[in-house]
Amino acid sequence: MTAPLILHNFFRSSTSIRVRAALNLKGVAYEQRTYALRRGDHRAPAYRALNPQGLVPALELPDGTVIPQSPAILEYLEETHPEPPLLPRGATARARVRALASAVACDIHPVNNLRILLYLETRFGADEAAVAEWFRHWVAESFGPLETMLAGSPDTGHFCHGDAPTLADVCLFSQAVNNRRFAVDMEPYPTIRRIVDACAALPAFERALPENQPDAA
Amino acid sequence: MTAPLILHNFFRSSTSIRVRAALNLKGVAYEQRTYALRRGDHRAPAYRALNPQGLVPALELPDGTVIPQSPAILEYLEETHPEPPLLPRGATARARVRALASAVACDIHPVNNLRILLYLETRFGADEAAVAEWFRHWVAESFGPLETMLAGSPDTGHFCHGDAPTLADVCLFSQAVNNRRFAVDMEPYPTIRRIVDACAALPAFERALPENQPDAA
Repeated sequence: MTAPLILHNFFRSSTSIRVRAALNLKGVAYEQRTYALRRGDHRAPAYRALNPQGLVPALELPDGTVIPQSPAILEYLEETHPEPPLLPRGATARARVRALASAVACDIHPVNNLRILLYLETRFGADEAAVAEWFRHWVAESFGPLETMLAGSPDTGHFCHGDAPTLADVCLFSQAVNNRRFAVDMEPYPTIRRIVDACAALPAFERALPENQPDAA
Repeated sequence: MTAPLILHNFFRSSTSIRVRAALNLKGVAYEQRTYALRRGDHRAPAYRALNPQGLVPALELPDGTVIPQSPAILEYLEETHPEPPLLPRGATARARVRALASAVACDIHPVNNLRILLYLETRFGADEAAVAEWFRHWVAESFGPLETMLAGSPDTGHFCHGDAPTLADVCLFSQAVNNRRFAVDMEPYPTIRRIVDACAALPAFERALPENQPDAA
């Protein structure tokens, strides 16, 4: 019997949602350790010893190796648990999926991460409305082009790429879940909405939702 | 004779530096199309038709396919031009390299991107000093832990992972180059400095520098 993977994460963190969805889609068993980010649990020395950046998620392997950074974890899972694949075959198709994933993972999420929003409050005196406006601005900056890219491509199917979920769907779904906290208007993005709904209909995504985690408030 | 790859990019963009360094390391020939970001060239309809996000870099293939997003381009180059490899063998080692790369690509660069800095000016009235402080804050937030991760690991060699450059070095080097614009103090990061110097000594990295591009001011 092998020790299970341990996912260090937080129920509401959208990068944590990504990893939970990928683990669920691949049917990989894992245990959770949870960190209340507003309370600063992730900055405690014990966690910093595992992951010096003090960010979640991080995946701990049975041999004690800790993999931080959700994009690295997702690629690791794809390499070690190839079935079902979350990247298509063919370098160009894989590049399309990774680019769609990256438009969320590099252009939306990092700028709207909790630590950035808190810094806007403390450094620039941003109030709740200004923080929400910031969040929605950066979502719209990328969701508009993402809608164009998805609606305009014959490669788009039931999901972002074809008819099976990929890493692009994992990232897009997690961002859409995160958007709920700031009441982002999804009306301008019919293709994104359709794909997010298709994800939500799958148990693997549903079980990854914040409200279904042990640390949900 | 095959048509060359076309790299849509900007001399000073650190994500463009990454892709140029990877192309150079792999000895892949490419032509450049350049976009003056401060002038908004990348937002012109002609470029938006190629890349709806209107961001650089993007790699155009001979068949007209356009791959946006530097992480997707780097993985594409690794898959289509495997030699010399920019990812090590073994899933755990690859995860380490991707995590180091991602700490730059997801946690530092997106938050310090030109579009964010300009928005801080227009939305929060940040002056030059406040923008520089913002930039340095987010570099320090990740460079501190990166120094710990690199200095504390037996996997670190002449470069981030072993004695040959990987995608982690490509990202770290590009960030270090970008740091020069905001006079980031590199004194607290001896291991990072050593690795960046090792990169700078290689012609592939040197030829990727902003000052060696056709659109350098």
